[in-house]
Amino acid sequence: MTKPLNLGMIGYGFMGRAHTNGYKRVADFFPELEYRPVLKAACARNQEKVQAFADQWGYESTETDWRELLKRDDIDAVDICVPNNLHKEIAIAAAEAGKMILCEKPIAMDTAEGEEMCQAVEKAGVANTVWYNYRRVPAVTLAKNLIDEGKLGRIFHYRANFLQDWTISEDLPQGGAALWRLDAAAAGSGVTGDLLAHCIDTAIWLNGKVDNVTAMTETFIKERVHTETGEKQQVGIDDACAFLCRFSNGSLGLFESTRYARGHKALYTFEINGEHASIKWDLHDLHRLEYFDHRDEGKLRGWRSIHVTDNGGEHPYMDKWWVPGLQIGYEHSFVHHVADFLKSLETGTPCGPTFRDALETQKICDAVLGSAKSGSWEQVG
Amino acid sequence: MTKPLNLGMIGYGFMGRAHTNGYKRVADFFPELEYRPVLKAACARNQEKVQAFADQWGYESTETDWRELLKRDDIDAVDICVPNNLHKEIAIAAAEAGKMILCEKPIAMDTAEGEEMCQAVEKAGVANTVWYNYRRVPAVTLAKNLIDEGKLGRIFHYRANFLQDWTISEDLPQGGAALWRLDAAAAGSGVTGDLLAHCIDTAIWLNGKVDNVTAMTETFIKERVHTETGEKQQVGIDDACAFLCRFSNGSLGLFESTRYARGHKALYTFEINGEHASIKWDLHDLHRLEYFDHRDEGKLRGWRSIHVTDNGGEHPYMDKWWVPGLQIGYEHSFVHHVADFLKSLETGTPCGPTFRDALETQKICDAVLGSAKSGSWEQVG
Amino acid sequence: MTKPLNLGMIGYGFMGRAHTNGYKRVADFFPELEYRPVLKAACARNQEKVQAFADQWGYESTETDWRELLKRDDIDAVDICVPNNLHKEIAIAAAEAGKMILCEKPIAMDTAEGEEMCQAVEKAGVANTVWYNYRRVPAVTLAKNLIDEGKLGRIFHYRANFLQDWTISEDLPQGGAALWRLDAAAAGSGVTGDLLAHCIDTAIWLNGKVDNVTAMTETFIKERVHTETGEKQQVGIDDACAFLCRFSNGSLGLFESTRYARGHKALYTFEINGEHASIKWDLHDLHRLEYFDHRDEGKLRGWRSIHVTDNGGEHPYMDKWWVPGLQIGYEHSFVHHVADFLKSLETGTPCGPTFRDALETQKICDAVLGSAKSGSWEQVG
Amino acid sequence: MTKPLNLGMIGYGFMGRAHTNGYKRVADFFPELEYRPVLKAACARNQEKVQAFADQWGYESTETDWRELLKRDDIDAVDICVPNNLHKEIAIAAAEAGKMILCEKPIAMDTAEGEEMCQAVEKAGVANTVWYNYRRVPAVTLAKNLIDEGKLGRIFHYRANFLQDWTISEDLPQGGAALWRLDAAAAGSGVTGDLLAHCIDTAIWLNGKVDNVTAMTETFIKERVHTETGEKQQVGIDDACAFLCRFSNGSLGLFESTRYARGHKALYTFEINGEHASIKWDLHDLHRLEYFDHRDEGKLRGWRSIHVTDNGGEHPYMDKWWVPGLQIGYEHSFVHHVADFLKSLETGTPCGPTFRDALETQKICDAVLGSAKSGSWEQVG
Repeated sequence: MTKPLNLGMIGYGFMGRAHTNGYKRVADFFPELEYRPVLKAACARNQEKVQAFADQWGYESTETDWRELLKRDDIDAVDICVPNNLHKEIAIAAAEAGKMILCEKPIAMDTAEGEEMCQAVEKAGVANTVWYNYRRVPAVTLAKNLIDEGKLGRIFHYRANFLQDWTISEDLPQGGAALWRLDAAAAGSGVTGDLLAHCIDTAIWLNGKVDNVTAMTETFIKERVHTETGEKQQVGIDDACAFLCRFSNGSLGLFESTRYARGHKALYTFEINGEHASIKWDLHDLHRLEYFDHRDEGKLRGWRSIHVTDNGGEHPYMDKWWVPGLQIGYEHSFVHHVADFLKSLETGTPCGPTFRDALETQKICDAVLGSAKSGSWEQVG
Repeated sequence: MTKPLNLGMIGYGFMGRAHTNGYKRVADFFPELEYRPVLKAACARNQEKVQAFADQWGYESTETDWRELLKRDDIDAVDICVPNNLHKEIAIAAAEAGKMILCEKPIAMDTAEGEEMCQAVEKAGVANTVWYNYRRVPAVTLAKNLIDEGKLGRIFHYRANFLQDWTISEDLPQGGAALWRLDAAAAGSGVTGDLLAHCIDTAIWLNGKVDNVTAMTETFIKERVHTETGEKQQVGIDDACAFLCRFSNGSLGLFESTRYARGHKALYTFEINGEHASIKWDLHDLHRLEYFDHRDEGKLRGWRSIHVTDNGGEHPYMDKWWVPGLQIGYEHSFVHHVADFLKSLETGTPCGPTFRDALETQKICDAVLGSAKSGSWEQVG
Repeated sequence: MTKPLNLGMIGYGFMGRAHTNGYKRVADFFPELEYRPVLKAACARNQEKVQAFADQWGYESTETDWRELLKRDDIDAVDICVPNNLHKEIAIAAAEAGKMILCEKPIAMDTAEGEEMCQAVEKAGVANTVWYNYRRVPAVTLAKNLIDEGKLGRIFHYRANFLQDWTISEDLPQGGAALWRLDAAAAGSGVTGDLLAHCIDTAIWLNGKVDNVTAMTETFIKERVHTETGEKQQVGIDDACAFLCRFSNGSLGLFESTRYARGHKALYTFEINGEHASIKWDLHDLHRLEYFDHRDEGKLRGWRSIHVTDNGGEHPYMDKWWVPGLQIGYEHSFVHHVADFLKSLETGTPCGPTFRDALETQKICDAVLGSAKSGSWEQVG
Repeated sequence: MTKPLNLGMIGYGFMGRAHTNGYKRVADFFPELEYRPVLKAACARNQEKVQAFADQWGYESTETDWRELLKRDDIDAVDICVPNNLHKEIAIAAAEAGKMILCEKPIAMDTAEGEEMCQAVEKAGVANTVWYNYRRVPAVTLAKNLIDEGKLGRIFHYRANFLQDWTISEDLPQGGAALWRLDAAAAGSGVTGDLLAHCIDTAIWLNGKVDNVTAMTETFIKERVHTETGEKQQVGIDDACAFLCRFSNGSLGLFESTRYARGHKALYTFEINGEHASIKWDLHDLHRLEYFDHRDEGKLRGWRSIHVTDNGGEHPYMDKWWVPGLQIGYEHSFVHHVADFLKSLETGTPCGPTFRDALETQKICDAVLGSAKSGSWEQVG
């Protein structure tokens, strides 16, 4: 006896596609789950575009006003896939309407907004989660398991990068549907909220709280044509951001993100050095985890490249897919997130990162941007 | 105006799942296609199991006798996903029933069977294709494009391996639904038909005809319990096979496959050395293509690791998926194959490898197995 | 007609061996050089140990007081391979004695000492160089050439790490001949002067001046037994250090070093991202340079792994060694440094990094250590 | 009290340099050895060239007739570094003159010649060794140790390649001092004796005897100008050679070599698959050994990249060099060979591969070349 989970999708961009694919595939690969996503409605201001999206992906209906969507009784949950400056208003209204919420990251424009959102979902008691999807790449989940088992021992170092190269040309404009991430009014920040937020979410999940930070940001191209005005306007976002930090467990952190690292498309990497063992991961080869264990016999110590594709059923999520040796890709992290969200509805436990978890990342982002302005170390939130 | 393509799936094993996933996802990612697969019926002898499969994947009905399936007017195409010894009979009957056929590889138990099958589909004039899915891994398709453009120049060497390690334990039994690949009666051969056939299909697609071969095979574990009899029986398959060959274009070939290569789960690799450039590929990192071009500036020559994840729309199939830097996985090769098959129905051109193309691979497999027995070089076909 | 260069080596530790090997091999591989090193004298306080060193390596004589060495007429040049706290006094006296000086890095305990040393050699007009040997790893020299040719265009990012793991055990003592690098009194600082100084020297050579920095340091093990007293004493050095910086050319820098990165023995890596191309290098595979060029044909763009082992004579220094494909190792960087020093005597041009060049690195180290204490951004020197 | 080992070097080419460097460096890094090589005489037909060589490398005298060299009482050992067709005559005369012999590989033009040479050294009772230097790359020696410890268990597969790309241009001539390896009259064979012989020597050292082989060879460029005649002449050597074989221990072998593999300069690789563990090595990164152990915890299994640069003194030969993490290069394998030869004089045990060991490789080469001609499997020896 399966139960439907009626979904309303708000937005139809890249993330709208990625999430929708997650909803559509989950039952094929996680047939044991009680809840089944139903694509009830897609919502966006542009009727023509949202209809095309609904047609392609199989949404049963469309809306052009998210307020109307929230009024519908046949919607159990909404997925917020719109630019960051719209998250707060929609999320609070959705919570008040009693809808579950799956919100794209970063949770909000800043900590204050995020705090309001957290209070709204907590008050309403609705299930909520934020799409920091990389937690559910099997190799990353395996890293989490290893740390929780104590394989690494005391942690000394955490370093993470998220390197891209798609905005190097000064002819690239800013703003509009495709390029809102370059427009500070819509995105709040540049790489900090877009890319470093991913690195931070993973880091606090794996390594705990961050106490304080010192940061620098840079905007290499100072002016770009705005797609809506056709005029050259000042660029308000950070093209690059790097920060040092101290974690509460005494380890040191180093984070960097940029869209000006020629040769890297989506190179999210992290490395953790512990007393006994170390771990490395890289989004460009997301199906592998690098692992070094000092307890190995001396002459045979070396970094192991673990092909995280099952190995006798011991690799997270991988028993759901193919056979050992056959890799999955980027999109599967979303399928896993959907599966875990559905499972959380069965068990009544939260599906992390919740809004409250994601607020912690937002606080670090704010401290980072604050430090970049102040030139001083900043305490986190 | 889309048109349905009503499918009947015969079999429900690993390949049944992989193909079904291809049918279910193609419209989401290739919305421009005219034909849409409809999962009409799943067919297998065991009613309980085929029903469970149909329920999980969404087949509308089930059959327990493939002859009944072939009689149904609401079936346009059948997908043959059963052990190799059943391909011929089903395929010929399906052709006679006017059904299109998508047949799992290798096409048959031997060349003679394959020839009969080719004649049947050609006589019936039905669309047909064989699931050598690796042709449609984007990096492999890119390799094909590079060769066709002449980037490599004259070819000197082709080498390919397919290495696994899952049958090393002598406690592993043979035969039955899960292990028919170890049973010579069902599979015809061991690694030759299962793994080398993939290497050969890619090779003749990329590098043309093979003239002659010299081969050796080995069965390391001589007896295994058969799951159906519970008795120890002689193992009839080849656990490992290697061969040397000469291609018609004058290049030399080296092929090897085994299920006794500890540390490799599905390590299908090939390398091609040409006068001007060379190419390498590896299934364990299927989203990459290694490329060396001697025409690069001397001091800057090196193997390039191409992350085949778009690059401005120039990587085959990748404009259908996510954004540059985000990799796809194993299963996508089947989605691409489905897409190309559907496209071929629109255009009326064959979708390679056709039965006739796949027969060429069968001929080489037969020559390889023949040479392993005779100890002599054998001519192909 | 070759000319002797009579050398006096002060010290006999790891660097004493590495430099001596450089002197002994240079004539075999650079036979065209006018000057030939002659191992005249080795000098160290412990007569027995210095004699053993001299016997093993072929020094003609020994001294136990460097002041005596400096008085000898048969010494043209001295090589200072003693702990950092002794550099200044010896170097100034050597300059006053009119000896050429090859000084181990870092130049001194701090900028003030270094400035005195610079003034001394400049006043005396003696040839001088500091052993930042990594400049002369062929792959690193190639990186320099590529940047000078303009291959990278405008530089956006520079990042470097030097990761080790040899001091994680708290049972490791500090101080004494073998472990003076852990003793703040002898070393001045920990990883900053030992490891980051290498990263900084390469960085300013490749990417120019650094304007300002913000840094953090950490001492993970707070007390260690001192080998000379046998008592537990506070550890005065930095076990780890990381800093952010801005280069004068507008690019951003990220540097990190530690001796607590489990799994890395001497992982000095750097990466430079330019407008058109990027470069990566790694001491653990020092014979390779990774290079990405955005001007490559779109579908064929990828990181090239350049095996810097000749390629038709276009790789720096490599025409002196074996044949293409055959790698050299760590010690060769010292042979190259000796060769360049000898060449500089012929041509009368300085052999970088000179004392003055090395002072720039010292200034950055001081700013880094200062920032780690002050918690503020610090201007460089 | 050290003892001199007075050496006479016959030849001055690439190998003459590599061996000489070995003699000159051994005492610096292996000071405990009793014997010290003394470069007494270099010998070659061309007086001017041999004098230049002697001057550069420090040989005390020269000879232009190897017969004169053999008459000298001040010569203890001769090193034969001349083309293959001259090995036999010199070696037999040297043995008769009571000289120790270090002979470049392959031992001879064919098995018959090699057998005569073996008998001569055995009759004379002189120390002898053949320069298959790759046995003494530390990572390869480590592989040997692992196998001898039983880490791999039963061996199933051995595969090796030696790929180069330097003869692709048809404008390259054959013959003469620099290119005698392309001249069948001087070299006996092409890649078989030059490159595959290395692969075979390692293979039989690691994996034991080879029983039989089936092979193919190819000469891609049929005619080249001969440097001595200035005329186009037929090319007598094999440009490429591949063979399959069966080892006496039941494992299967696959070997390939070519000088037409664009992108590879000296890519000697081997891989061994055992029941419990597998090993891979690659000359292009000779300081690493790849190791996979199935006994590792399931979820953490992966290929380990072992940086063979000490690890607490457990890596063969590496305690003699620098510190962990700092790699050595190609030339060090010769220093190790010299050290082991000198040690063998102290202990009175043979230094493998002896002439007799090297004859085994020659027998396999002969069987390979024989099979390539006959088109049949050939028994070894």
